[in-house]
Amino acid sequence: MNGGNGKERIVHEVAMVVPKRIREEEEEGDCVEVLVTELKKRGMVVDRVVGLADEFLKVAAPWETLGNAAAELHIRKPTRLGIDLPFEMQGSEAFFRQPDGSLFSWFERFRCYQHLIYGIVNCEGYDVTLKLDGREFCWAAGESLVRRLESEGVIKQMFPLHDEFKRKELLQNWALNWWNCTNQPIDQIYSYFGAKIGVYFSFLGMYTQWLIFPALLGFIVQMVDFGSLQFLVLPSFFVSIILWAALFLQFWKRKNSALLARWQINYLVGPSQGYRFLGMEWSSLPFPKDFIKKIGNERAQEKEAYQRYEWFAYRKRFRNDVLVIVSIICLQLPFELAYAHIYEMITYDAIKYVLTAIYLLIIQYLTRLGGKVSVKLINREINESVEYRANSLIYKVFGLYFMQTYIGIFYHALLHRNFMTLRQVLIQRLIISQVFWTLMDGSLPYLKYSYRKFRARKKKKSEGGPSTGRIQIASRVEKEYFKPTYSASIGVELEDGLFDDSLELALQFGMIMMFACAFPLAFALAAVSNVMEIRTNALKLLVTLRRPLPRAAATIGAWLNIWQFLVVMSICTNSALLVCLYDQEGKWKIEPGLAAILIMEHVLLLLKFGLSRLVPEEPAWVRANRVKNVTQAQDMYCKQLLRSMSGEFASLAKTQQEQQQQQRQDSEQF
Amino acid sequence: MNGGNGKERIVHEVAMVVPKRIREEEEEGDCVEVLVTELKKRGMVVDRVVGLADEFLKVAAPWETLGNAAAELHIRKPTRLGIDLPFEMQGSEAFFRQPDGSLFSWFERFRCYQHLIYGIVNCEGYDVTLKLDGREFCWAAGESLVRRLESEGVIKQMFPLHDEFKRKELLQNWALNWWNCTNQPIDQIYSYFGAKIGVYFSFLGMYTQWLIFPALLGFIVQMVDFGSLQFLVLPSFFVSIILWAALFLQFWKRKNSALLARWQINYLVGPSQGYRFLGMEWSSLPFPKDFIKKIGNERAQEKEAYQRYEWFAYRKRFRNDVLVIVSIICLQLPFELAYAHIYEMITYDAIKYVLTAIYLLIIQYLTRLGGKVSVKLINREINESVEYRANSLIYKVFGLYFMQTYIGIFYHALLHRNFMTLRQVLIQRLIISQVFWTLMDGSLPYLKYSYRKFRARKKKKSEGGPSTGRIQIASRVEKEYFKPTYSASIGVELEDGLFDDSLELALQFGMIMMFACAFPLAFALAAVSNVMEIRTNALKLLVTLRRPLPRAAATIGAWLNIWQFLVVMSICTNSALLVCLYDQEGKWKIEPGLAAILIMEHVLLLLKFGLSRLVPEEPAWVRANRVKNVTQAQDMYCKQLLRSMSGEFASLAKTQQEQQQQQRQDSEQF
Repeated sequence: MNGGNGKERIVHEVAMVVPKRIREEEEEGDCVEVLVTELKKRGMVVDRVVGLADEFLKVAAPWETLGNAAAELHIRKPTRLGIDLPFEMQGSEAFFRQPDGSLFSWFERFRCYQHLIYGIVNCEGYDVTLKLDGREFCWAAGESLVRRLESEGVIKQMFPLHDEFKRKELLQNWALNWWNCTNQPIDQIYSYFGAKIGVYFSFLGMYTQWLIFPALLGFIVQMVDFGSLQFLVLPSFFVSIILWAALFLQFWKRKNSALLARWQINYLVGPSQGYRFLGMEWSSLPFPKDFIKKIGNERAQEKEAYQRYEWFAYRKRFRNDVLVIVSIICLQLPFELAYAHIYEMITYDAIKYVLTAIYLLIIQYLTRLGGKVSVKLINREINESVEYRANSLIYKVFGLYFMQTYIGIFYHALLHRNFMTLRQVLIQRLIISQVFWTLMDGSLPYLKYSYRKFRARKKKKSEGGPSTGRIQIASRVEKEYFKPTYSASIGVELEDGLFDDSLELALQFGMIMMFACAFPLAFALAAVSNVMEIRTNALKLLVTLRRPLPRAAATIGAWLNIWQFLVVMSICTNSALLVCLYDQEGKWKIEPGLAAILIMEHVLLLLKFGLSRLVPEEPAWVRANRVKNVTQAQDMYCKQLLRSMSGEFASLAKTQQEQQQQQRQDSEQF
Repeated sequence: MNGGNGKERIVHEVAMVVPKRIREEEEEGDCVEVLVTELKKRGMVVDRVVGLADEFLKVAAPWETLGNAAAELHIRKPTRLGIDLPFEMQGSEAFFRQPDGSLFSWFERFRCYQHLIYGIVNCEGYDVTLKLDGREFCWAAGESLVRRLESEGVIKQMFPLHDEFKRKELLQNWALNWWNCTNQPIDQIYSYFGAKIGVYFSFLGMYTQWLIFPALLGFIVQMVDFGSLQFLVLPSFFVSIILWAALFLQFWKRKNSALLARWQINYLVGPSQGYRFLGMEWSSLPFPKDFIKKIGNERAQEKEAYQRYEWFAYRKRFRNDVLVIVSIICLQLPFELAYAHIYEMITYDAIKYVLTAIYLLIIQYLTRLGGKVSVKLINREINESVEYRANSLIYKVFGLYFMQTYIGIFYHALLHRNFMTLRQVLIQRLIISQVFWTLMDGSLPYLKYSYRKFRARKKKKSEGGPSTGRIQIASRVEKEYFKPTYSASIGVELEDGLFDDSLELALQFGMIMMFACAFPLAFALAAVSNVMEIRTNALKLLVTLRRPLPRAAATIGAWLNIWQFLVVMSICTNSALLVCLYDQEGKWKIEPGLAAILIMEHVLLLLKFGLSRLVPEEPAWVRANRVKNVTQAQDMYCKQLLRSMSGEFASLAKTQQEQQQQQRQDSEQF
């Protein structure tokens, strides 16, 4: 009654892959048997499915089991009191529910699953001998069973499973529902994929909606001849799209906070909300705990240590950023310029193609190298959370892609000052990148899937001898096992597939914004391609890939800053384009001194606005102090509070839930 | 035991001015007598002092009286739970204490005093007849006594009183302590004057400290000859002071948040902290309450109404801002330019002086007019709180002063392109403004005070007939009565004297930053003048003026944005100055087309960065919903929570207080 939807539907949400039993007879101490027994002991429902080469354990947990795990983990959840308290089973009524009525979000559920599965330890007090097909190994007292099995290679993989019922629903309402172009069932996406992916699709939808205005405007600018006022058209178009972009980003922030309010996520958008970060506890701060213990209770020393630590971490990060920026400017920029220059010089088409092929190979390698270097640098940094590290990677890698994508076009624009060929280049690039990404999104996962299936079948054939005809793969879980994961093309350690999708979007936005004056029609192209993009991304997530691991972040994070940066850049580049346009004979002279001063001014303006992001507005010790004091007190009173609140809220909860339903329906427009 | 410092010192903190009794004999129903009796009934301590022409009622309230008033007012205070709860007498241990150990801040105390004094109503059920020197009037049932007496002219004034003990302490440690140049007893200032003034002086101190670096650099740049590298000196100076200014403002934010942490003010610096704003309740939001009641509980309608209301308020504000900007550009700019132009054309010194005198008279009038128009416009706006309205005034009036102060200098710089005369103008302006403000700060209040004293003495003399020699003013409260209040030069309705002090500082900062390349030595002048500024401002507050009314804000608010704007402006102006410097023969040509594009680019860059301040990041309905839900639940549990917390915290409080003491000592450096 308390959890879920009243009558609980058992959903297997996690799968483990174990070897298939070879001999038929039951063996004493078989490790898979032990695992299944232990899982059931912990209150989970296990379903065993035998596949071609492996066996699959599908695990489900009723809400009581999840609740106990959440209480053990002290997962902080927003309560009706307005503060986040650690979850307790007795007070479950006091916690806000998800928009779909369940108590835990997918992110929280997955955390509980992991805790439950990895929490199986040997409590017997003595070592237990486990067997697998004759091989024996020992499960030491106090050791985690799953970790042991993983290191022995028994558990090959563990991955989240699709929920077939909800997946089909989403497929129908979302991925294949072409008629409501940018309207998406965001709440369903949130409860199925988690906050991060929900926010991404909401952003994509809003961006596409807003694109209609500049698309129309661009169409008019391109098509209509304004006669004697023609010379004013492009500057006004420039001004309006800059205003449009700035307003769009500002309204996106509003929409994001409306989303979080609907999803009951207590993540304030400001920079200084240490202890309210999505139920993560104080311990997620990077400051080493034992270090604090050593210092003891002396406030002054602790503060000083914090300050030293903060500056130490900051210095490291700063050094890395400088390293990345310098190497992009000194190594990548000349390379890209050289390619652009040679490409422009060559007259034979055949050599051009060869050159481009070589170039593409080299940048593939370079990008991967850059990603690896970035990940190594980030691993040496001290960052506050996984999301912070992921953002750090995004900034660094985006620098690489930025140079790669736009330098050639800039070079072309400045060299030729010819808008017609520039337009051709832009159309080429836009279409090529659209085709490239669609292929990458659509076919690559399917090829991977087919290859894995083929290999498994071949293995089965060679094992089982000549069988009759094709071997069918019957079980859904095995099909999912063959599907590739939602992973990033570079920096897999820190990011998932959202990285590529967001990168594609940001590069597109940069392309259409930075060269807006050269090719106003690009906005219309982008709008059309984004409507497709929503479907292909949705299909990828729902059909061709495994269900992605849920992530905690509730904003688009670093990407917002990158978009802001692109808007500022496009103010500068469009000004340069306008200069080229009005000065096609090259009569305008600019003194080198004046040019130097202008460049210095622009760099300083960028620095001024960048600096506010570099230095945090709140010292680390202030935040740490607040978090420590508050959580101590809150935890002290948690149980008492929850018990007293829970009873009275039980009646309130029902009406509130109905209200939420109502609210959800009409808060789509923020 | 519970309040204050254990042994409570009775401090009279509010004074009321009533007419002196003419006849000696006691009269039945004398209104002053009734007032004193009622005040005493409410638990206050009243001290009656007879002055020259008036009688003074000095009112003090023991902490129990204040506590009851705070509980009646439901003043929200931060608790050790991390949330703000309405104050309750039973749970007083659970609330954080002020750095000086008392339970209420000066702002909260003053609010309680007002509540206590204005809360005296006629509960008899029938009208009471009051008398004053034969005149009779009626105190209706349920009417507030003090309001009645105010409207009858019996209570002439009510003003906060200085606390002689603390005032002398501050005078010694702060205003007259010339040796620790920029170190100020900020905590004492905070507890005596409230958060806003404390923050202002902390800002002034930090600014003066940070000024040492550019002062030294400017000195070196001005004095040392770098030989062949001389042409690089000014650009590098430019870059370093811009970086310095940006860093200073960022570090000020850190310092501010450290201050708030020390003072236990739960004001998060981010934009979206509706319900945490300094103990102000939801009701302080401008949305009309009865409007909500009419709508009832329907969520969707309420949300829509909120949105409509938000956009309505926003449109009004936007219209006003546009009006102000347009009128400044179209009316003030030509006037200032005309003055600058005529001034430059005239060769005779005598005419120059006459012209300047006329100009000064006119701008006095114009500024006052501008202030009045701004206040009228703001009164038609719908703003969230008093501080928001004050900020709105600051932006509008600063626009006026900005034009007034800098346009003449710009004109001079662009016309003559001569750095020597520009320097002379800057020195003149800096010194004149310093002298002007010091005179305004120092002498004007003293003159006002002397005049009022003189008038009172004269009146006394004419009344009492020829007396022997001078009449001495013995009572301290009467002296304070003669002192002028801490009021703004324009917009008195919305701002107090902090406006003038902050304006002076901002104008100085603009002057030294925007023309940094022309006169690097200005930073040293500013540093010296600021060390004096701290003392004169302190003396003004402690000696020549009445104690100011405490204010709620805990940041420098609008001024921070103005300083940020000045930094951006100074990037542009210094670039222009550098162009003038390197192009003294005027050989550099700039095409009109290029110039137009450059101007458009700069305007767009400014707009881009301004826009994020114009559109709030969180929709009003999200904030209102959160605030409503949270406060409802919190209030429901408030009593229960406090009672259970209070007992256990009583022991904890003592140790924590000691720790705070420690912390305070060493968190001066943020």
